[in-house]
Amino acid sequence: MFDQLIYHGLVLTMDPHQGPLTDGYVAINGSRIAAVGQARHDADLPPAVQKWDAAGHLVMPGLVNCHTHAAMTLFRGLADDLALPEWLHKHIFPAEARWVDEDFVSTGTLLAAAELIRGGVTTVADAYFWESGARRALAQAGLRAVVAQGVIDFPAPGVPDPKENLRVARDFIDSGSAWSSQGLISTLFCHSPSTCRDATLQAAKEMTRARHLPFFIHLAETREEVWHCRQQHGLTPVGYLDHLGVLDARTVAVHCVWLEEEDREILAARQVRICHCPESNLKLASGLAPVPDLCRRGLKVGLGSDGAASNNNLDLWGEMSLTARLHKVAALDPTVLPARQVLDMATLAGAQVLGLGEVTGSLTPGKEADLILVDLQQPHLTPLYDPYSHLVYAAGAADVSGVMVGGRWLLRHRELLTLSWPEIKRQVALWAARLGKGSGT
Amino acid sequence: MFDQLIYHGLVLTMDPHQGPLTDGYVAINGSRIAAVGQARHDADLPPAVQKWDAAGHLVMPGLVNCHTHAAMTLFRGLADDLALPEWLHKHIFPAEARWVDEDFVSTGTLLAAAELIRGGVTTVADAYFWESGARRALAQAGLRAVVAQGVIDFPAPGVPDPKENLRVARDFIDSGSAWSSQGLISTLFCHSPSTCRDATLQAAKEMTRARHLPFFIHLAETREEVWHCRQQHGLTPVGYLDHLGVLDARTVAVHCVWLEEEDREILAARQVRICHCPESNLKLASGLAPVPDLCRRGLKVGLGSDGAASNNNLDLWGEMSLTARLHKVAALDPTVLPARQVLDMATLAGAQVLGLGEVTGSLTPGKEADLILVDLQQPHLTPLYDPYSHLVYAAGAADVSGVMVGGRWLLRHRELLTLSWPEIKRQVALWAARLGKGSGT
Repeated sequence: MFDQLIYHGLVLTMDPHQGPLTDGYVAINGSRIAAVGQARHDADLPPAVQKWDAAGHLVMPGLVNCHTHAAMTLFRGLADDLALPEWLHKHIFPAEARWVDEDFVSTGTLLAAAELIRGGVTTVADAYFWESGARRALAQAGLRAVVAQGVIDFPAPGVPDPKENLRVARDFIDSGSAWSSQGLISTLFCHSPSTCRDATLQAAKEMTRARHLPFFIHLAETREEVWHCRQQHGLTPVGYLDHLGVLDARTVAVHCVWLEEEDREILAARQVRICHCPESNLKLASGLAPVPDLCRRGLKVGLGSDGAASNNNLDLWGEMSLTARLHKVAALDPTVLPARQVLDMATLAGAQVLGLGEVTGSLTPGKEADLILVDLQQPHLTPLYDPYSHLVYAAGAADVSGVMVGGRWLLRHRELLTLSWPEIKRQVALWAARLGKGSGT
Repeated sequence: MFDQLIYHGLVLTMDPHQGPLTDGYVAINGSRIAAVGQARHDADLPPAVQKWDAAGHLVMPGLVNCHTHAAMTLFRGLADDLALPEWLHKHIFPAEARWVDEDFVSTGTLLAAAELIRGGVTTVADAYFWESGARRALAQAGLRAVVAQGVIDFPAPGVPDPKENLRVARDFIDSGSAWSSQGLISTLFCHSPSTCRDATLQAAKEMTRARHLPFFIHLAETREEVWHCRQQHGLTPVGYLDHLGVLDARTVAVHCVWLEEEDREILAARQVRICHCPESNLKLASGLAPVPDLCRRGLKVGLGSDGAASNNNLDLWGEMSLTARLHKVAALDPTVLPARQVLDMATLAGAQVLGLGEVTGSLTPGKEADLILVDLQQPHLTPLYDPYSHLVYAAGAADVSGVMVGGRWLLRHRELLTLSWPEIKRQVALWAARLGKGSGT
């Protein structure tokens, strides 16, 4: 007798050796997947206490968003279509300096969590400041999360004196054990090789290495970053980080747009994890990451939405659609990054990037029951010949009708179960009014 | 006393000289917009027989999809991630030859219409074969449409003998007058410069020119097309069509990916209308159309989804998001194609591309009441500082909650009013089963 049974679904396990299971079911005990199978007749279904009919729905692992700055949802649409220096220095940095505090981060992260859940994300890696506020919000939402406190050698929200940044970082990590039972991993995010000193980078990496935690960093995002790094250190950003000894299989390198051949060799040799954020890279005109080449070199590549200030949503379906298309046209080859490979990046490979490959990312017995239901009964998903194709080339966030994390429903019939949307909206409206332009509606 | 009043909305007229109207209303008499304004207090609202409260919603012109092959929804996801010759010759052409008849086109177009309406499209330009079936379906749906019968010098669905293609074309156009009162324009689509002979191109263009109708053609979509045209005619496809005299302000050139400098000069001199289909161009790895340059030369550029076999949805929100981002990264300049310009491409400029600039595309008194409601009360559209930014960078098809064409509601509270989705689903399932792979669910 299982605790829960989701049945009558079209099940995509994302196990590399398994195809779609029609008349599929997923059985759950406690927080974990106990069995996955097919039953043509209801009499063949295993017994369960609670049963959820998924007829007309696809059942698949929840999506893994490998990089966002969740609280920046409060800056969504505040400044767009601007040159990067103007966007950063005239809009984003001043707004952050003026407004970001723990309540800002908590409120913005609640808003992000509502959007992430509605869009089928079950695991998110967040990277920002005041991350104690983000952790609280993500725990309330019930999302699985890697929460990374930002480290930067400039005055930052909550850390006006950069000399304090490593102490704040250590305090944040040390307070993390109280949250780990809720599926929250507390770690660090160094802003970039050009905004952190060598000693900061090494100390932060050492702090996470000693605790077997993932370590996040923006890397090789813009041409200017590469140019400045060469000027300052005589090395590319990748070469510089390698020289400092901070590249390994627990480092998540975000963006990786401007890579020389030797950078790619270093990333492959160190088995660095890669996070690709195509919508942000395009909107900020940063460039095009060489993802097919990194995949060919055996690197694990996941997808990230980046923050809402540079995207402007947290929708991984858009990232999938764009990833599958963008690299085809860049190579002038429509066979590059086929649908199933891109769906893997958004699920199992994403989990592996975050060091959670044994925990989530596929519907495999023993893993946490992190799964979503996709409503197939819609014009744009009809007819259905190939579910992988539909998920990558035709589906959208609004097609997600159910979301479960660790056996607990966060969304059912498109309704949020752990968060109060009216209450979040009320809190966001207060912040939006303070930010000086009103909420507009 | 107006017939209808939509009020309490955030109104974007897309009039080039007008910004967002808070507390906005749109008054409608018969099929047309009678007045647009603002009323801070309900007492200031004009009287109307039927009143629709749009609180929490954005009211804007319906989207204009300048190019699709609607019936190809029945091939959605049938073949993806393949080299173009294999995709076309092993999958699409054989499937078309075997299956496409008037019922196929009618059923597939009904499915497309359901998707288009739910995604906020009010005007669509269709181009396929058996277009009498498409016209019937679009009339039933209540969409405004330009319906273009395909002309090609190869055996085609409904026209097995290419010698008959111009006769079939003429019959289709001549039968069009009976449909014009329903907002349907009947015209022609020549498949491409490489699949139609010179005499065919000239005769088809002449047929539409004499009747002041738009004329559609795929143009400069792939490098191979340009190469073959140079081999055969010693001219680029644009140069060749100009030599034949078929380029003018009523020619809609679809794709325009591979353009030489002199091609661009010809297109600008002839004021050819351009349709940009970025999702399809990327998925088929065709290339990147030089849209910012064409806009700078004063050309009108609209957006098209292309058919569902190469996209795989008919979602103009995705096309907007991609258009705004793609050309930024191509230019490494984030100020290229700002949000409002892209929204113009999907509305007013799109209508102008189709020759309907005086009829639809903006909320202007005297134009047809073609408008949509966008539900702003959603996490991914919160907070709201800039509606143009939200519509292009954050919104999606599922945010459309209401659609009106010519004063008639086609969608309200996200429910289709002119089409029966269960009935369409039933008909599509029969076709999908015949296509040999089953509907999958």
